[in-house]
Amino acid sequence: MSFLDKLNERYATKAMNAEVVPQEKIDNILEAIRLAPTSSGLQPFEVFVITNSDTKSSIKEIAWNQSQVTDCSHLLVFAAWDNYTVDRINYMFDLTNEIRGFKNEGWENYRQMLLDGYPKRDAETNFEHAARQTYIAFMAAITQAAYEGLDSTPMEGFDPNALDKILGLREKGLRSTLLLPIGYKDADKDWLVNLVKVRKPMDKLVTFI
Amino acid sequence: MSFLDKLNERYATKAMNAEVVPQEKIDNILEAIRLAPTSSGLQPFEVFVITNSDTKSSIKEIAWNQSQVTDCSHLLVFAAWDNYTVDRINYMFDLTNEIRGFKNEGWENYRQMLLDGYPKRDAETNFEHAARQTYIAFMAAITQAAYEGLDSTPMEGFDPNALDKILGLREKGLRSTLLLPIGYKDADKDWLVNLVKVRKPMDKLVTFI
Repeated sequence: MSFLDKLNERYATKAMNAEVVPQEKIDNILEAIRLAPTSSGLQPFEVFVITNSDTKSSIKEIAWNQSQVTDCSHLLVFAAWDNYTVDRINYMFDLTNEIRGFKNEGWENYRQMLLDGYPKRDAETNFEHAARQTYIAFMAAITQAAYEGLDSTPMEGFDPNALDKILGLREKGLRSTLLLPIGYKDADKDWLVNLVKVRKPMDKLVTFI
Repeated sequence: MSFLDKLNERYATKAMNAEVVPQEKIDNILEAIRLAPTSSGLQPFEVFVITNSDTKSSIKEIAWNQSQVTDCSHLLVFAAWDNYTVDRINYMFDLTNEIRGFKNEGWENYRQMLLDGYPKRDAETNFEHAARQTYIAFMAAITQAAYEGLDSTPMEGFDPNALDKILGLREKGLRSTLLLPIGYKDADKDWLVNLVKVRKPMDKLVTFI
């Protein structure tokens, strides 16, 4: 099935049935996240995959009590770096040199430019920049979930500070940005499942120059 | 080809050959953008598709002189709403009611919650929220371009204020967030084309709870 068909088919599932998703499908979704492009290739985030019932229940309480948080199979939490640091930037450039097996002057100049620029910016600017990258990986996850025949619910409706506390993210230098419950829809309980997808008409969205 | 194969295959193309992409392929990419999920379904952005040579040249000057900006076939500019307003929120809820052919109490309550919450927040907070949504649509565009057999270059390296001026975006209540040149690679001039893709190992990216 084409990507456009998958985009038409998928929707923000409002009720799930708690059925467990095979690990292989979750692994493929995580691989899509890992392969997603990010600014300068820094991959400035981590992903937490939650199946523990108590943790899911705690998160549900700070996510407007949305049932998918507990009725999903796997709950993905996207958490962006709270800041860009010298170590974090060097890690990715060193990894690149290690994997490619050589040093390149242009690449080293680019590293230096980021090292000169990013760490001195205020943490909030850097977090926002990192947070944006999580939305790219998020879309990769939603797409792969659709190709795996799974349902998912893109979710910003939660208290990020409370979630950071539940998962101890701030101590890890991370801040939560997005939730993605993944599982199987409970069609009988899902008010959205049979409604028409609504999108702006093309002429309200696109201008040709 | 699977989505994971496409993710492995695609890369941030560093040189393009100026060959023109058939309009149908561009239309499919725009449809992927249109279908991408966004927070509350608000689709808080517009996309500008630039083929005009003079406009491309002006943008290249404020985009670190990156050759893909002029050597691509179509240059996509993603521009987020500068703020959430009552009119912008009502447009999407009214459109939903019109397309679905009915009013729903829960949906109207949700509209009211957004109307009570979003417009009174400061413009910068709202812009950042809208900007994040453009990254979801951006990934949809990159994905569809890959399925169309096209090359693209995800690009944050430009002066957004200067780009806003060139395209008159601020007067439209928009602010640029991303560029996506789309076209065909010039393999002989592309230093990245034959290098191994580098990504963090899974254990640096994912934690299971």
